[in-house]
Amino acid sequence: MFSGSYVCDPDRIYVLNMKILLMAVGRTTSEIMRRGIDLYKDRLKYYDAPVEIKIIEDIKGAKSLTQQRQKELEGESILRNVTPSDRVVLLDENGREFTSREFAAFVDKQMVSGVKRLVFVVGGPYGFSDAVYARADSKLSLSRMTFNHEMVRLFFIEQLYRAMTIRRGEPYHHD
Amino acid sequence: MFSGSYVCDPDRIYVLNMKILLMAVGRTTSEIMRRGIDLYKDRLKYYDAPVEIKIIEDIKGAKSLTQQRQKELEGESILRNVTPSDRVVLLDENGREFTSREFAAFVDKQMVSGVKRLVFVVGGPYGFSDAVYARADSKLSLSRMTFNHEMVRLFFIEQLYRAMTIRRGEPYHHD
Repeated sequence: MFSGSYVCDPDRIYVLNMKILLMAVGRTTSEIMRRGIDLYKDRLKYYDAPVEIKIIEDIKGAKSLTQQRQKELEGESILRNVTPSDRVVLLDENGREFTSREFAAFVDKQMVSGVKRLVFVVGGPYGFSDAVYARADSKLSLSRMTFNHEMVRLFFIEQLYRAMTIRRGEPYHHD
Repeated sequence: MFSGSYVCDPDRIYVLNMKILLMAVGRTTSEIMRRGIDLYKDRLKYYDAPVEIKIIEDIKGAKSLTQQRQKELEGESILRNVTPSDRVVLLDENGREFTSREFAAFVDKQMVSGVKRLVFVVGGPYGFSDAVYARADSKLSLSRMTFNHEMVRLFFIEQLYRAMTIRRGEPYHHD
C-alpha cells in the first residue's frame, strides 16, 4: 500500500513519505501538558507527515551525577535512537529563530528533498552533550526565553501543526 | 493592613505593591489551556505582585466587520480597562525579545520604580489598533513564531512565574 501523499504544485510532483520524530528527554508528568500535546498529535494525523513522539527516559540516579555526566548519558540515549539517514534538528537556545512561515518552509524543504525522517530533539534541563551537537544537522530556537521542558514540547508540536496548515494553505495561521 | 513586600537588597529598600494585570482579547475556550493558565496563576499567589487576568469579550458580530473595524472595537475595550497611571506593555510580534532573565529584570525594574500596575495585553487575531499602540509604553515579543491566542497566555504566565522565581533566586530557572 502507498502511504505517502503528493505535492499538488505541478512544478514539483513528488511522493512525500517523510516521517517526523519528536524526541524529548524525560517524561511529560503534567497531565495538562500531556493532554495538550496529545491534542495536536491527534490533529497532525490528517496531515502529510506522520508524527511520532519518543521519550528518552530520565537517567536513573541523575541527582548523584554531575550535570556534564548527565548530559553525556542523555546524549548516548538520544544517539541510540537516531539512524544515519535521519535529519537531526536540535531545539536549542543558540539555534536559529524562525517565524512560523519560515519554519513551515523549512519542514516543506525537508519533505521534498527526500529526507526519510526529520528528528527534532528537546534536551534535558542542562542541554545537549558535545556528541549530540556533533551529530546534529541544524539547531532551531523557539524563543530567546526559556520554557519548562514540558511546555517546549507543547509549544513545538503546535508549531508543527501550524506548519502543516501553512503548507496546505489552510486558514489556521494569520500573519 | 500592609499588603506589599520588601526588597531585601540593602541598597534598595522599597515597599513593593505593584499589581500585574494580564489582559487578553477573547475567552480561553480550551479547557486544557484554561487549566494550565490557572495552575500558574495559583502559583503566582505566593510571589511579590498579585496577578489578575482580565478577558476582553470578543466583539459581537465580529465576522461581519472588517479586520480593521474589529481591531478598533477591541482597542476601545482594551483602553477602557486601562488607567492613566498604568504601565502598558503589548505582547506584539514586533516587540522586543527578552531572555527570561532580561524579562525578570524588566518586571523587577517596574516594581522598584513605583509603577502601580503593570498591564500586559494580548491582542486579538489581527493585532492592535493604532489607538492601542499610541497608548502603549512598550512592546514585548515572546517569539518570532506565531502561537495561537490561548497558548500565548499560557506561555506568558509561565514566564511571569519564572520571572518571579528568578527575582527570588529560586531554583526553577536553569540557564
